[in-house]
Amino acid sequence: MDIVLIGAGNLATRLGLRLVECNHRIVQVYSRTEESAAALADKLNTVWTTHPGEISPEGQLYLVSVSDKALEELLTQINLGGRLVAHTAGSLRMDVLKPFSANFGVFYPLQTFSKSRELDFSQIPVCIEANNSENIDILRKLGTSIFNDVREIDSAQRRQLHLSAVFVCNFVNHLYAIGEELLSEKEIDFNILKPLIAETAAKALEFSPKEVQTGPAVRFDRNVIDRHMDMLKEHPQWNNIYKLLSESIHQLHTK
Amino acid sequence: MDIVLIGAGNLATRLGLRLVECNHRIVQVYSRTEESAAALADKLNTVWTTHPGEISPEGQLYLVSVSDKALEELLTQINLGGRLVAHTAGSLRMDVLKPFSANFGVFYPLQTFSKSRELDFSQIPVCIEANNSENIDILRKLGTSIFNDVREIDSAQRRQLHLSAVFVCNFVNHLYAIGEELLSEKEIDFNILKPLIAETAAKALEFSPKEVQTGPAVRFDRNVIDRHMDMLKEHPQWNNIYKLLSESIHQLHTK
Repeated sequence: MDIVLIGAGNLATRLGLRLVECNHRIVQVYSRTEESAAALADKLNTVWTTHPGEISPEGQLYLVSVSDKALEELLTQINLGGRLVAHTAGSLRMDVLKPFSANFGVFYPLQTFSKSRELDFSQIPVCIEANNSENIDILRKLGTSIFNDVREIDSAQRRQLHLSAVFVCNFVNHLYAIGEELLSEKEIDFNILKPLIAETAAKALEFSPKEVQTGPAVRFDRNVIDRHMDMLKEHPQWNNIYKLLSESIHQLHTK
Repeated sequence: MDIVLIGAGNLATRLGLRLVECNHRIVQVYSRTEESAAALADKLNTVWTTHPGEISPEGQLYLVSVSDKALEELLTQINLGGRLVAHTAGSLRMDVLKPFSANFGVFYPLQTFSKSRELDFSQIPVCIEANNSENIDILRKLGTSIFNDVREIDSAQRRQLHLSAVFVCNFVNHLYAIGEELLSEKEIDFNILKPLIAETAAKALEFSPKEVQTGPAVRFDRNVIDRHMDMLKEHPQWNNIYKLLSESIHQLHTK
């Protein structure tokens, strides 16, 4: 397919590289900043622009990966001429695209993307949605060409998925970061926690997380909880997080 | 070594099996309940008791894996006769053992243990501490015989490690459980999140978690955050967790 990439962040970068690898053609890259646009266009061996008015009319698909905030304002500046446009956002309804083209949809890969880390695309589910069956077929065909797991998911389900993803990915990563900070305060190497991080994730892939909860909160071990809260006195925010998560574990396991 | 296991929970079970596998002898298993004591003794092909007064005097090491709460009361009922006793708890000071024997220490494997899941012991760090160099040598020798990564860690560092472990393991698992619950409300299969869970952990093994934080909170994407908070209206506790973790991410990335 001939694709115009609108946005040049982590997701656009990994997706663009994968599209090229699977013999799709990236017609052009648009980004607000010259630096990002040029860097990605260079990786994809294509041209770029920072002017919405100069976006090429030659795409069969316009894939929009910009922040939710920027999306609508940007699209008012682009003449899509009825061509297929899809956004890649978890939490945006498909209908935000309706004012901009007669053909629109969503192409949302459920994964966390870094510019610097390669991913196994065969392991990533992609959630698709479109305004009619013809466009769904186009997005399914594109999805199947670069992913193994293509699912038709409506906007209400997708936003729930995105919310869950914030918990199991973004918030989980922040808890890792808190662990890292706590150890660095006592000059302990973060590496010592890595087997535990790996095993905790591996368990969730095998069992229901609710069923395998361990730790002081689920044992209602008040002694340990109080000692930990006391150790966090100088970190009131983490102290609050400790308290709230312990209470939430307790509640989930007594309801 | 000839070892008496005091406690028959997840940790005692996996550790006992590993000790036997590495040619140590489990002299006896003690547990408060007949069911647990018998089940573990059966797995380890040894005898068991539920009476502290009947604990065998023939151990070279008494490994105590009971709740922090139960430990002291239990040990007052056991006559150790100066033999080496070590607890396996992250958050208990070594000195709690001082009243019960002239020889004492800590043998703390930093990992989450399930009765039903086998672990690769070569990947588990074990933290040791003892009241004198002779006992450290004994625990180091034992550690080396069943783990690859044996570290001498004092009580202050160990309790910080344990606190960090609660964040990166117990609390992380609870966030997985919240994701699981949110999806089940919309009848979406939890499996769809598994590649994301695996990748999030894999990233933390390669990069500093603070450096690779993604998501609406670190982008300060108020639109998405507000929508998510609104979706959690009927879960006030999870709504609070969402708010607090988002603020904490923001704070860590602006300080």
